[in-house]
Amino acid sequence: MGEYEINKVEMSGNLKGIIPPTVTPLLSNGELDKKATERLTKHLLDGGVHGFFILGTTGEISSLKPSIKKELISLTCRLVDRAVPVIVGITHTALDSSLKFAKVAKENGADYVVSAPPFFFPLDQQDILAYYTRLADLSPLPLFLYNFPAMTKCSIEPDTVEELSKHSNIVGIKDSSGNGVYFQNLLSIKRANPEFNVFVGPEELLVQSVYSGADGAVAGGANIFPSLYVKLYEAVIAGDKEKINRIQPIIMEISRKIYACSGKSSSYLSGIKESLYYLGICESNICLPMLSVDNATKEQIRHNLEKIIFKIKTLG
Amino acid sequence: MGEYEINKVEMSGNLKGIIPPTVTPLLSNGELDKKATERLTKHLLDGGVHGFFILGTTGEISSLKPSIKKELISLTCRLVDRAVPVIVGITHTALDSSLKFAKVAKENGADYVVSAPPFFFPLDQQDILAYYTRLADLSPLPLFLYNFPAMTKCSIEPDTVEELSKHSNIVGIKDSSGNGVYFQNLLSIKRANPEFNVFVGPEELLVQSVYSGADGAVAGGANIFPSLYVKLYEAVIAGDKEKINRIQPIIMEISRKIYACSGKSSSYLSGIKESLYYLGICESNICLPMLSVDNATKEQIRHNLEKIIFKIKTLG
Amino acid sequence: MGEYEINKVEMSGNLKGIIPPTVTPLLSNGELDKKATERLTKHLLDGGVHGFFILGTTGEISSLKPSIKKELISLTCRLVDRAVPVIVGITHTALDSSLKFAKVAKENGADYVVSAPPFFFPLDQQDILAYYTRLADLSPLPLFLYNFPAMTKCSIEPDTVEELSKHSNIVGIKDSSGNGVYFQNLLSIKRANPEFNVFVGPEELLVQSVYSGADGAVAGGANIFPSLYVKLYEAVIAGDKEKINRIQPIIMEISRKIYACSGKSSSYLSGIKESLYYLGICESNICLPMLSVDNATKEQIRHNLEKIIFKIKTLG
Amino acid sequence: MGEYEINKVEMSGNLKGIIPPTVTPLLSNGELDKKATERLTKHLLDGGVHGFFILGTTGEISSLKPSIKKELISLTCRLVDRAVPVIVGITHTALDSSLKFAKVAKENGADYVVSAPPFFFPLDQQDILAYYTRLADLSPLPLFLYNFPAMTKCSIEPDTVEELSKHSNIVGIKDSSGNGVYFQNLLSIKRANPEFNVFVGPEELLVQSVYSGADGAVAGGANIFPSLYVKLYEAVIAGDKEKINRIQPIIMEISRKIYACSGKSSSYLSGIKESLYYLGICESNICLPMLSVDNATKEQIRHNLEKIIFKIKTLG
Repeated sequence: MGEYEINKVEMSGNLKGIIPPTVTPLLSNGELDKKATERLTKHLLDGGVHGFFILGTTGEISSLKPSIKKELISLTCRLVDRAVPVIVGITHTALDSSLKFAKVAKENGADYVVSAPPFFFPLDQQDILAYYTRLADLSPLPLFLYNFPAMTKCSIEPDTVEELSKHSNIVGIKDSSGNGVYFQNLLSIKRANPEFNVFVGPEELLVQSVYSGADGAVAGGANIFPSLYVKLYEAVIAGDKEKINRIQPIIMEISRKIYACSGKSSSYLSGIKESLYYLGICESNICLPMLSVDNATKEQIRHNLEKIIFKIKTLG
Repeated sequence: MGEYEINKVEMSGNLKGIIPPTVTPLLSNGELDKKATERLTKHLLDGGVHGFFILGTTGEISSLKPSIKKELISLTCRLVDRAVPVIVGITHTALDSSLKFAKVAKENGADYVVSAPPFFFPLDQQDILAYYTRLADLSPLPLFLYNFPAMTKCSIEPDTVEELSKHSNIVGIKDSSGNGVYFQNLLSIKRANPEFNVFVGPEELLVQSVYSGADGAVAGGANIFPSLYVKLYEAVIAGDKEKINRIQPIIMEISRKIYACSGKSSSYLSGIKESLYYLGICESNICLPMLSVDNATKEQIRHNLEKIIFKIKTLG
Repeated sequence: MGEYEINKVEMSGNLKGIIPPTVTPLLSNGELDKKATERLTKHLLDGGVHGFFILGTTGEISSLKPSIKKELISLTCRLVDRAVPVIVGITHTALDSSLKFAKVAKENGADYVVSAPPFFFPLDQQDILAYYTRLADLSPLPLFLYNFPAMTKCSIEPDTVEELSKHSNIVGIKDSSGNGVYFQNLLSIKRANPEFNVFVGPEELLVQSVYSGADGAVAGGANIFPSLYVKLYEAVIAGDKEKINRIQPIIMEISRKIYACSGKSSSYLSGIKESLYYLGICESNICLPMLSVDNATKEQIRHNLEKIIFKIKTLG
Repeated sequence: MGEYEINKVEMSGNLKGIIPPTVTPLLSNGELDKKATERLTKHLLDGGVHGFFILGTTGEISSLKPSIKKELISLTCRLVDRAVPVIVGITHTALDSSLKFAKVAKENGADYVVSAPPFFFPLDQQDILAYYTRLADLSPLPLFLYNFPAMTKCSIEPDTVEELSKHSNIVGIKDSSGNGVYFQNLLSIKRANPEFNVFVGPEELLVQSVYSGADGAVAGGANIFPSLYVKLYEAVIAGDKEKINRIQPIIMEISRKIYACSGKSSSYLSGIKESLYYLGICESNICLPMLSVDNATKEQIRHNLEKIIFKIKTLG
């Protein structure tokens, strides 16, 4: 435990900025595309991202078989090679299964783990508190909470987060709820405990969240345009309102024209993977139970992407 | 129609800032407390608010009988006496009933009306578009949309808002969803059409919303502390980060310690009315179907309020 | 109160069977179609229905202006002329408005009123209990509860129903939740208090509900085919499984082929009104905020209706 | 495939009646309690149940680590020894993980597998159709669908079930939605395809469902009182209304007094496991993320159980 406590102090100090929730590049046979993973990792490091969040919702964690998850952890940690922190998603419905991957993460040199609450049974706040306490007690790496009610059916309420933030092995939270009042409550917790890391999920909220005190954003679009999100983050830190006003409309265009091209549940993920395919980084294969968007939508995404790329180039 | 169009240009130009959704002061027999309405109106005008939004959710519109609604419209318009714009809530499930009150508002000299979608039947976007188009066609005063899915079960989706924003008698939207991505989409609509007014509902989001381009906030807490919210608004406009950082924690304390003292659905409203009772402005009576919070909670609210008042005083 | 108590004993004794929630026939200008109301009333009485439930969800209560509601109450009571009980919907968000129509119902000779909980604010069970107690205390006619969470956002939980069933002016409940376990709990309440009337909303559940002890069904399809539902009810009472097995598939065909022809929120209501138009009883006009289904759907409904009519004829 | 097709014809013919979703007996260290599993299996076979459904929601499938699931499959198949069919839950979010356990089930001689839809991402009907088609294509045992929207966030809509019912390796559905209209739609599908097995989840609906044409019930309470549910099932088949009327109130008492003693999400499961502890069959340990009900509730459950046992004894 001593080892970890050093981690907490050392690492939480420098965990901030843009942390892409990386997609999991897949071959058409469903296995991990290792070459593409290399290309993606290089693309992100070149883009200046401040960390990697692998095996999140965008990484299709729940749909992958264990062997792929292990390969991805090992490969990513090796490729990143401690250039930036690696956070590994261990969300599962069974505590033992989460812990098994926390150990894999630790053995491969990852820095943190992150877990949403178990998502089959409806849970109350007592259940959530007890579960996270146990998970943090047993995790060999410091733990991030992950709030995503649209997936898990439950919200980790502010009082629960506050209580959990006192656990020595819990270092922060990623909030993908999109709920503004909830997020302000997280920032109140951070004001009282500045070492507690608060990251926002929806990248559309990057500006206002970082402006309000958040540590950064877990921005899916940073898979495609890592340096764009890094520039936007830096503009907020610098208080460069003029630059923000030029970039934020592009962020919103990515949101509406790349992620929301279809009503399919895969719309957001297909938007990112189609864009990465366009950029020559990986195939656009996604895992069941999600089905890719149809060809007309793919065409539309590519068309919209070209316009966005043009706008980014003219940003300078 | 000509008359209204002048209004649109003239008035939307100056509609911004802090617009309290006023409580409806009630006697213990359920009738309007006119003396208290006078005290409240003076309190708000003295506090520097930029407008009045009467008969909103905070005004218990859905629980009031027609005669009280008429009295309140008439009395408020007379008391405000065009010092600032008055926006009158006309939300109802029947179009004719909404229009009836729009006419009352017009006759009494109010400036705008605001309506949430009908809230009994589940509606789709086509229904919402058609309903608002008809309401705006027939309304004698310019209309604000009001998005509040927690009450109405439906969201006025961004594409629908965009379409409605082109209607000559629709001048803006108040969004109480608390959904950050949704609100950013509203701001995109405003970027393309700057005359379209966008107000945020949850006052916890005032800072980030105005910072991001919103026109202001419909802040319930401004019933209690009008000048506090006005100062915060002005600090955001001025980019005074230091002042924001001193006020925002108080806003969050009002949220958690006054509004969220109980799990009752009346918790927010009772929090405001108990505070106004403490300040000598009105009784804390509320209408069925909402029940007041219990006495222990009332005591707690008053205790928390005293601490908040002390902090506000030390702000300077 | 004495007068009403006589009512309770006398009337609840004979309130059972098929009670159509009648549609409100409308002219194209939005006013009540009185001639069509006469035709509909005769159609239902000829079909042998056991009661009328006017101004329910199917009657578009929430969308109608007060003058139409008054006309419909007066006209229906006069036309039915005490042949069967008339139950008048008084659902509203404001207690005073509900009571105003309860008085109109009483003055016109209706037998009962029925009200869903107020549906704007989210309510808890204490709120619901207090509201119904007050409404029942003040109502000049015996009151039915009306559970319809899909519209009102709240469920009147079994413990609350049990408590309310002891009120001398509350005589029963109509449950439109479609929730089987909930309904079995209502039947447990009825077992302990047999005078408490329990009616099922979704007509697809008529057979199993009456078989299990319910008093009858508030069947929307009985607007179109009153005698079909009456026959089905009688078959269940008689334990005529063979007849049930011939009719129930037709009930399900009406459900899927008339009510579910479209994804519009008006799908069910348009299905009934288009069918009544086909039968020459009334126009298919419906009120905002609901929009009629499109013409292709109307065509489909009529086509399906013809097949259903043929099957009903061959039933014998 | 030839082998399985024989299964489908032979077995679906005799799959009906009471199939308990068995609890998973656990030691205090979280491992499988094999002795208790033996006692439970004997208890159920002695009680005359018509099949076993292991690793369902009641079996805490989502909370168990893989090794326990394998042990339980192997042990149960050996203990049941083909006396009645064994159905094995394989619900998971990853297709490969579901298939892995389908193979384990096959190897141990189980008869069927059953799976709810993947439950992390929100899915539409296309997603659900594609997923089940793939799962059924690859499953070595015939597959049951499992509808449980309260856990999975999605409903397998009737049109989707109808389409899937045509797959040669899909033999039926268990519906735990409690939605009466939905269930009637399933029975319509069964009318057109009588070999498609339709089981109801909530045991409170056993009577009305079997009366309406369902094949039986997956009744959690049959863990405690197997012969009671078997008798009730036989009474419905025999049309013995008098016996039904004596047993159904006890079923409802189990529902309200054993399952609903607490607001905890574990309330239903703790109710069953506490009862089994009282009967000397297994410990009441349950898995994280669910927490046991508190001691006062346990005491209440035991007290209520004694009263229920007395009533069952006096049934004769």
